[in-house]
Amino acid sequence: MADLKSTFLKVYSDLKSELLQDPSFEFTDDSREWVERMLNYNVPGGKLNRGLSVIDSYKLLKEGKELSEEELFLASALGWCVEWLQAYFLVLDDIMDNSHTRRGQPCWFRLPKVGLIAVNDGILLRNHIGRILRKHFRGKPYYVDLLDLFNEVEFQTASGQMIDLITTLEGEKDLSKYSLSKHRRIVQYKTAYYSFYLPVACALLMSGENLENHIDVKNILVDMGIYFQVQDDYLDCFGAPETIGKIGTDIEDFKCSWLVVKALEVCNEDQKKALYENYGKPDPSNVANVKALYNELNLEGVFADFESKSYEKLITSIEAHPSKPVQAVLKSFLAKIYKRQK
Amino acid sequence: MADLKSTFLKVYSDLKSELLQDPSFEFTDDSREWVERMLNYNVPGGKLNRGLSVIDSYKLLKEGKELSEEELFLASALGWCVEWLQAYFLVLDDIMDNSHTRRGQPCWFRLPKVGLIAVNDGILLRNHIGRILRKHFRGKPYYVDLLDLFNEVEFQTASGQMIDLITTLEGEKDLSKYSLSKHRRIVQYKTAYYSFYLPVACALLMSGENLENHIDVKNILVDMGIYFQVQDDYLDCFGAPETIGKIGTDIEDFKCSWLVVKALEVCNEDQKKALYENYGKPDPSNVANVKALYNELNLEGVFADFESKSYEKLITSIEAHPSKPVQAVLKSFLAKIYKRQK
Ligand SMILES: [Mg+2]
Ligand SMILES: [Mg+2]
Ligand SMILES: [Mg+2]
Ligand SMILES: [Mg+2]
Ligand SMILES: [Mg+2]
Ligand SMILES: [Mg+2]
Repeated sequence: MADLKSTFLKVYSDLKSELLQDPSFEFTDDSREWVERMLNYNVPGGKLNRGLSVIDSYKLLKEGKELSEEELFLASALGWCVEWLQAYFLVLDDIMDNSHTRRGQPCWFRLPKVGLIAVNDGILLRNHIGRILRKHFRGKPYYVDLLDLFNEVEFQTASGQMIDLITTLEGEKDLSKYSLSKHRRIVQYKTAYYSFYLPVACALLMSGENLENHIDVKNILVDMGIYFQVQDDYLDCFGAPETIGKIGTDIEDFKCSWLVVKALEVCNEDQKKALYENYGKPDPSNVANVKALYNELNLEGVFADFESKSYEKLITSIEAHPSKPVQAVLKSFLAKIYKRQK
Repeated sequence: MADLKSTFLKVYSDLKSELLQDPSFEFTDDSREWVERMLNYNVPGGKLNRGLSVIDSYKLLKEGKELSEEELFLASALGWCVEWLQAYFLVLDDIMDNSHTRRGQPCWFRLPKVGLIAVNDGILLRNHIGRILRKHFRGKPYYVDLLDLFNEVEFQTASGQMIDLITTLEGEKDLSKYSLSKHRRIVQYKTAYYSFYLPVACALLMSGENLENHIDVKNILVDMGIYFQVQDDYLDCFGAPETIGKIGTDIEDFKCSWLVVKALEVCNEDQKKALYENYGKPDPSNVANVKALYNELNLEGVFADFESKSYEKLITSIEAHPSKPVQAVLKSFLAKIYKRQK
């Protein structure tokens, strides 16, 4: 819906204007311009899937009743809070990973005038969420639950990020640190909570639901998030570059990918030796050796099996849920990602 | 009170243990050890003035009635939240300032195994505050006010930090960017809210007060925070190194110090030229020229005047306050800093 997206983007402008006039701070002209540039550079340039899914989910929970203007604004504002959170994570992650590009442009900290000021900009992005929630949700009965939710999900994401960082950066490249359980833990905490659970939890709170009654929804969405990341890892190696829009480099980058942990799990001693010798090296011949090994181990088939099992398990869990509108939300998420090619 | 400090440190151990067992995350052994080391390195090693002042303030608000064990624990936990906030700011500030030492040891990010993982550690420190508040204050009537308070104060601090960063780092050294009003704004937002207002606001909330009725208390404490930072700037140049425990380098470092903005305000054109030529250079002769100029302009006298005027103004404001216990809190803060030599 191009229409929904433009409504959503209009709310971005409104929220930005409010933030630039926040009475809790006395902006200088320079600092107001800085924040505006920083927001435009980092917040609205992604696919906006997470943010838009708050609105979609809320609509499904309303079972087709039309949203009032206020409801549409509030659901959009929560959607933007999720996007702000994502922007915050990405700005800081790119610094820690020493990355070069993001969403087709240089990473924010790479801009000559920015540098490590980007650390504080990341903090500001996180703080804007509190400002937005306070301004628009302070009087709502679920206000405190929103604050708790964003706090808990941020904590989980930062904790997943920590395991990722100390696994990948501490010491030298050592495949023995990677395992399926480590992979699951990193992915679950670093990605699944904020990308899958958070948008739906926002919609549930807006609908007057108590999140403590929806632990099963959380578990299903977290499983979906893990499945999504496994697809991501799979497509990095086996996807068509023209479809996924980039050439994967997880093998060269020594990433803790589902493929390598699965390979480690099913390989014999000789294959393991080959993996240790070739994984994480920039030379195309090393990469080719790893890919040959992945083929030898039939990881495409192992993945296809994982995919269909995940799907079945998720559908069964979803259909066991007592509420049809909640089922609809979960099914819409699943439909968006099942057998995705990009 | 050595006794209060050891009680306070005991609460640190308790809070740390809880954080290392947080059920919202599945720690690996490595990550639990990492967080423990990170906390011990960064949280309890300061003077703890901010944290202890929460307990002191709460006691004064109780007008001598003894604190129950629970009250002492809760006031201490809030004190630690302030210390955790400070640790978070310092870990990230040291990265952005490319600093070398902090509290007599290398900055956290300087440790070889840490590096830029420190950015995420800073985030974790901030997130721990939400975890502590949630665990111990969730059922209190002032829980949501605590969340709002920490959010607003963090936002103000990060915003002050932003002005500091874009003033100091953007473009080259240019004294024309410095002014008394810029100095006031940086100091007020970057330091005063979290160091002076926040501890008292925590104590007020615990006492059942509504912070909206205490805007005057906030204003007085913010003015005290500004006065405190002006002292800090003054002592950097005119304090006795053996008393303040370091040799000041604000002149060499091109800091936006109260002394240089005051000098810029009162100097003539020739003196201004000399200031522009000598400020922010590492050579001792340049530093000596700046100090000679400060003496020519009688900045010691200007400061003494500022100090006594600030004191009078603060005392007058404090004594206009309708509540004696609140007066006592404010006077105890003022007594701790008035005419301090370190
Ligand atoms: Mg990255
Ligand atoms: Mg990363
Ligand atoms: Mg990937
Ligand atoms: Mg610094
Ligand atoms: Mg700094
Ligand atoms: Mg200083």
